[in-house]
Amino acid sequence: MKLYYDLMSQPSRAVYIFMKTTKIPFEDCKVDLRNGEHFADEYAEINPFRLVPVIDDGGFKLTESVAILRYLSRKYNVADHWYPKDLKVQARVDEYLEWQHLNTRINCAMYFQHKFLRPKMFGTKVNEKQVEQFFNRMETTLEQFETIWLKNNKPFLCGDQISIADVLAACELEQPSMAGYDVYEGRPLLAAWYKRVKDILNPHYNEGHKVVQTVREKFGGVVPAAKL
Amino acid sequence: MKLYYDLMSQPSRAVYIFMKTTKIPFEDCKVDLRNGEHFADEYAEINPFRLVPVIDDGGFKLTESVAILRYLSRKYNVADHWYPKDLKVQARVDEYLEWQHLNTRINCAMYFQHKFLRPKMFGTKVNEKQVEQFFNRMETTLEQFETIWLKNNKPFLCGDQISIADVLAACELEQPSMAGYDVYEGRPLLAAWYKRVKDILNPHYNEGHKVVQTVREKFGGVVPAAKL
Repeated sequence: MKLYYDLMSQPSRAVYIFMKTTKIPFEDCKVDLRNGEHFADEYAEINPFRLVPVIDDGGFKLTESVAILRYLSRKYNVADHWYPKDLKVQARVDEYLEWQHLNTRINCAMYFQHKFLRPKMFGTKVNEKQVEQFFNRMETTLEQFETIWLKNNKPFLCGDQISIADVLAACELEQPSMAGYDVYEGRPLLAAWYKRVKDILNPHYNEGHKVVQTVREKFGGVVPAAKL
Repeated sequence: MKLYYDLMSQPSRAVYIFMKTTKIPFEDCKVDLRNGEHFADEYAEINPFRLVPVIDDGGFKLTESVAILRYLSRKYNVADHWYPKDLKVQARVDEYLEWQHLNTRINCAMYFQHKFLRPKMFGTKVNEKQVEQFFNRMETTLEQFETIWLKNNKPFLCGDQISIADVLAACELEQPSMAGYDVYEGRPLLAAWYKRVKDILNPHYNEGHKVVQTVREKFGGVVPAAKL
């Protein structure tokens, strides 16, 4: 089993941390996005969409982090709570996994890209109006975490135990911290959830976020929920 | 089993057509989006995100069309090809289902909304520059259908047989037709795929698209792949 990834990519981190935590062995195939390795001719054979992460299971190449997390859970028969086999409990996990694409994923990523990544990469000025728009969308998503997903003091997003939904969400919510925004500030339910998730995923969670931490230190980011 | 839906919503149509085709009985709960029924107080109890479709299976409410299609496939044990139980074949279907959110879904919907829906609803002028941006993204997605998903003359998106991925994709690709754009024009592989999918899903496919056809006729839309 090969894993192609870059730890600057939040879905890559989710798959990496999940595999480390559940002790799924893999061959380490780093793809340096900053050096454009995903645009090399050879990489089209691995992923024609030129994204990470990708797994290659003896020639069976699979893209899309959510599909990968499901595949790994089933293939390695990991502890049931990660991706429950029960019809309804699984559907609840699926519900978050599908919801997040056009909410957590796009909103946090767009805020990060427009506030931080694009200006840094291309030397362009921050378009404050556009950033504000993405910020507001991200705020709506964060409010929905507290008022819908974690409603009634649910310990995890989809039930009483941690699932792949929590892993994916936590990694995504790290992204704005590099741009100086702590999503957990003033959101006690979300912050308590974050601590629970990290406690279960560590030491791999922190290890998988070393590069994120380096970027935060270098560019004036914030450590999320530092006061917890 | 109740189904809350509006046939103007493409994921609603996918679930509706799937249930009709696989003969899953449901109680018909129409939600009129144009009249804002999804913003009524009662609807927050059905879906706090105020979207359609939603199923209610004896009190178990589930949102997100992709999660719903998976749930229905498993609960009713429909013919295997719709959502295959084999690990790798299922992963291929999952791969499209996850990919489509930030590609087919968002790009076709944004083009439709900015070219057609918002100007019609709010009486605003079409922002041609923005429409062009969304059009170009949609074109990239459509090219990826032909060069990646349907590569090597694959009859369906994820293999030799129709799956829920094809149902979802076909319904999404109807949306631009209401804004006057035929996604199948000049794309023979995609057009042949569309015909195969419709042949299997009819008469329910056409029935589920009656309201789309009415909008096309009223506002100068085009019938997709009419020359086929």
